[in-house]
Amino acid sequence: MGKRKYTIGVDFGTESGRALLVDVKTGEEVATAVYPYGDGVIDEHLPGSAEPLPPDFALQNPRDYVDVLKETVPLLLRESGVAAEDVVGIGTDFTACTMLPIDESGTPLCQLPVWRGNPYAWVKIWKHHAAQPEANRLNEVAAERGEKWLPRYGGKISSEWLIPKIWETLNKAPEVYQAADRYLEAADWIVLQLTGEEKRNSCTAGYKAIWHKRQGYPDADFYAALDPRLRNVVDDKLSQDIHPLGERAGGLTPEMAELTGLKPGIAVPIGNVDAHVAVPASTVVEPGRLVAIMGTSTCIMVLGEEERVVEGMCGVVEDGIIPGFFGYEAGQSCVGDHFAWFVDNCVPPAYHDEAARRELDIHQLLEEKAARQNPGEHGLLALDWWNGNRSVLVDVDLTGLLIGATLLTTPEDIYRALIEATAYGARVIVEAFAGNGVAVDEIVACGGLPGRNRLLMQIYADVTGREIKIAGTAQSGALGSAMFAAVAAGKDAGGHGTIFEAAHSMARLGDVSYKPIPAHQVIYEQLYGEYVRLHDLFGRGHSDVMKRLKSLKRRLLANCRG
Amino acid sequence: MGKRKYTIGVDFGTESGRALLVDVKTGEEVATAVYPYGDGVIDEHLPGSAEPLPPDFALQNPRDYVDVLKETVPLLLRESGVAAEDVVGIGTDFTACTMLPIDESGTPLCQLPVWRGNPYAWVKIWKHHAAQPEANRLNEVAAERGEKWLPRYGGKISSEWLIPKIWETLNKAPEVYQAADRYLEAADWIVLQLTGEEKRNSCTAGYKAIWHKRQGYPDADFYAALDPRLRNVVDDKLSQDIHPLGERAGGLTPEMAELTGLKPGIAVPIGNVDAHVAVPASTVVEPGRLVAIMGTSTCIMVLGEEERVVEGMCGVVEDGIIPGFFGYEAGQSCVGDHFAWFVDNCVPPAYHDEAARRELDIHQLLEEKAARQNPGEHGLLALDWWNGNRSVLVDVDLTGLLIGATLLTTPEDIYRALIEATAYGARVIVEAFAGNGVAVDEIVACGGLPGRNRLLMQIYADVTGREIKIAGTAQSGALGSAMFAAVAAGKDAGGHGTIFEAAHSMARLGDVSYKPIPAHQVIYEQLYGEYVRLHDLFGRGHSDVMKRLKSLKRRLLANCRG
Repeated sequence: MGKRKYTIGVDFGTESGRALLVDVKTGEEVATAVYPYGDGVIDEHLPGSAEPLPPDFALQNPRDYVDVLKETVPLLLRESGVAAEDVVGIGTDFTACTMLPIDESGTPLCQLPVWRGNPYAWVKIWKHHAAQPEANRLNEVAAERGEKWLPRYGGKISSEWLIPKIWETLNKAPEVYQAADRYLEAADWIVLQLTGEEKRNSCTAGYKAIWHKRQGYPDADFYAALDPRLRNVVDDKLSQDIHPLGERAGGLTPEMAELTGLKPGIAVPIGNVDAHVAVPASTVVEPGRLVAIMGTSTCIMVLGEEERVVEGMCGVVEDGIIPGFFGYEAGQSCVGDHFAWFVDNCVPPAYHDEAARRELDIHQLLEEKAARQNPGEHGLLALDWWNGNRSVLVDVDLTGLLIGATLLTTPEDIYRALIEATAYGARVIVEAFAGNGVAVDEIVACGGLPGRNRLLMQIYADVTGREIKIAGTAQSGALGSAMFAAVAAGKDAGGHGTIFEAAHSMARLGDVSYKPIPAHQVIYEQLYGEYVRLHDLFGRGHSDVMKRLKSLKRRLLANCRG
Repeated sequence: MGKRKYTIGVDFGTESGRALLVDVKTGEEVATAVYPYGDGVIDEHLPGSAEPLPPDFALQNPRDYVDVLKETVPLLLRESGVAAEDVVGIGTDFTACTMLPIDESGTPLCQLPVWRGNPYAWVKIWKHHAAQPEANRLNEVAAERGEKWLPRYGGKISSEWLIPKIWETLNKAPEVYQAADRYLEAADWIVLQLTGEEKRNSCTAGYKAIWHKRQGYPDADFYAALDPRLRNVVDDKLSQDIHPLGERAGGLTPEMAELTGLKPGIAVPIGNVDAHVAVPASTVVEPGRLVAIMGTSTCIMVLGEEERVVEGMCGVVEDGIIPGFFGYEAGQSCVGDHFAWFVDNCVPPAYHDEAARRELDIHQLLEEKAARQNPGEHGLLALDWWNGNRSVLVDVDLTGLLIGATLLTTPEDIYRALIEATAYGARVIVEAFAGNGVAVDEIVACGGLPGRNRLLMQIYADVTGREIKIAGTAQSGALGSAMFAAVAAGKDAGGHGTIFEAAHSMARLGDVSYKPIPAHQVIYEQLYGEYVRLHDLFGRGHSDVMKRLKSLKRRLLANCRG
């Protein structure tokens, strides 16, 4: 038996970076370390400036990414006692689309004194929402032109994605666009820092930049139809050279070896995305097993053998999750956020007092009370659209609905109804996949929510009629990155030959799983029917009341400000 | 100038009785006294018994009504210093339908030792809801037979009314039905106590017992179709002898004079109902001016010159409110109750803390916050059906709906939306009257709510597009009864010739009134359109989801208990 070998996975999140040292043979999570970004999410003013940022801005400082490596990796080695020569690779995953302009040398423009004071020179992170006008116009033009790639994205490109964000800069700060030698996903920029190699990954290219393995990017004519200055955006500012996940991007540079305490030359894989890398970390490397990454929102991933059009999916990308498969992504924009909103805004003092007295989290108390009732007993039904609907309707202007309230309705009734609503929303997505030939036989949940709320998981099992297993790791992003690092290192270095082997050795399911309770399923079958009727009534244009209320509200608030 | 004369009004409510001593010429409210019923609302077990009452029971002890007279009237004289010889009449109003079985002498059966232990021998008050099965069957039979009186009651007889309550006793306790010499409204029973005369009033006969001034009661065949034993219920247990409001029932008996400290022989008017007597007390004795009695629920009254069929009204009764006019009644079953539910179940601790710190009532705090926004800004719309819909849909199985919620929705947003929903509901009723030829030019509000929430009243004015005036008295029931007492006393005794004269002298409006704000009206016009669309969608059978949710809930809860 050889000496134990390790890889490190680094998960770059919204507020912090987390590093994980993993045993390559067993998947044992040996040590972990978190470093909160010094500048956090920059949404009020740039560091060192008092000037307020425009609305809907969300930026980051790329120096913080390097600081994560500097602060966490040496700590892992020190705390675990693992020798640097036994670490055979380091992999990374990032939020996306989180993008930045760089100069020819790869230096972010915001690190150059001349551009430091310009917000458009900084990293725009995924939840930067100031490019909505550009996204709206892009979608109009694409629909008018009948662009054949549009159905792959559920008919809509999000304002969170790459081209709207670049176009926004071109419109608002053309000098920054001009000065940018290239635009890069942060997922690729960190790999450039680690290896000196610019190797763009197929995941962000496919899901966020409208790239297709066989068809490439949209035509130059399409970009020109948006704005003549964008005609050559791909060749001028991006790249046609896209690498599949699992590939080795390069070896760790001596500078980065010095910074991290690791050995120079160890394997660094192609960059990846937090939600996508969670799929193999949840043991899923084959079709038929859907992964739900459940946190403030829910990201839903499933693999397929063929490219199909599924209503309202966020995207389908060949090699986008696991090489050799088509990766399908869908999502629910309001899950944990929904329950947090409810607890912050709608739960009376007596409940908080009881929770405090019994030393329970308020969510635990509500879960306990809600779990005492059977499905259907509260008489409520909700549409889980407090933050719009991502899949399958792809409509940010839809809003929340609660029906069935009486003078006897309690907070736990509403709490349970909101949980159920998100479960019905998940089932709509599952059925959209299954109905279009993308099989969903089993669901594996990971992320923050599944471990915290047993009632929630049971309701999801009852509503979807499918067993729900729970990923064995609480850090699916970092574990997935460590797994891809083991693949990049390869068998000879003590790693793995493929992501399939890595998943077999390094990923596992938790002990608990949730099976549908037949008596509950019968009731939820009826309630789901009611949900679908309301979903179609308000979501498919039969009643546009939600849109009209929202547009009235917008108009009135604009008048107030104007 | 003659010596000042006075009358007393006694308002028999749900929990207590309130007496008011009023100056007949000026309407000055000289003294008031409240006596809480010793046995209150009897809904758990009979006094002196541990045996639980059946579900949905709500009874009272008629001895408490006499105690109100005994405890309050002498106090009024003592505290005011008014001499008994200057009190020229005493009038009463009651909740309705609040009814009891009596023996030949007028003694309530529950006061006879043999019947004391039988719940069906006691007073069933308005909110006794155990006769729902009888009401359902009655409505089926009436609809099948095409009974011509059914449209006068919005197509439905309530389980709260007289015939269902009597039939319930016949079904559950036929021995009590047999033993009852007659059934009487408590409104008439108290007049029988005061005067020794049984003079049934046209208000409860018309609104609660399906009596019509020109057509009398339903045919014996109808009662026989319900139950052969009911064929002669009118002749056996009720009376065809009905007296219009405003008439003198008789003089105060020596026994009652002794009990109250008043002079024997002073005028006692025909009995009346709390909501109906509030109409002249709010200055309204003519068509075109609608009265809204706003408390936990809202009772809506308006006078007309002709009998019209108005969708969903509770009833239209000639001489039912003011002699010589058709009195129309409609209602909203959830108004103050709605806001109380919200505050009890949906307002987080930070709001309660702020209210406590600033020494505000929580409703005041929510009103203050909600008043800062303009109509339409919260983006919400609600259907005010938390307790079903009384008018115009007459459907207890409808439930509450809230639409438009987002993650930025605040408690004050929802609070304001609920207020607006009740205002839209009121406008539906106003338009149902106006659209059927029953004019509504002005609204006068009375009851507990108008004085407590200025925002609410302004929203009602903006939504209905009508000026809203506020009654000058906080005790519109007792004042109205004192006014009718002055009419029963007559001019010669120092009272008034008619209720019109009494209203002119004794009733007044408050100083504050609410005029529609044109800029708000424009927005509420749009929002009311949306409300009506949802109202019709869910309330008129286009979507039966509320019914299905409620019936599923009922079935499940029945299974649990079964």
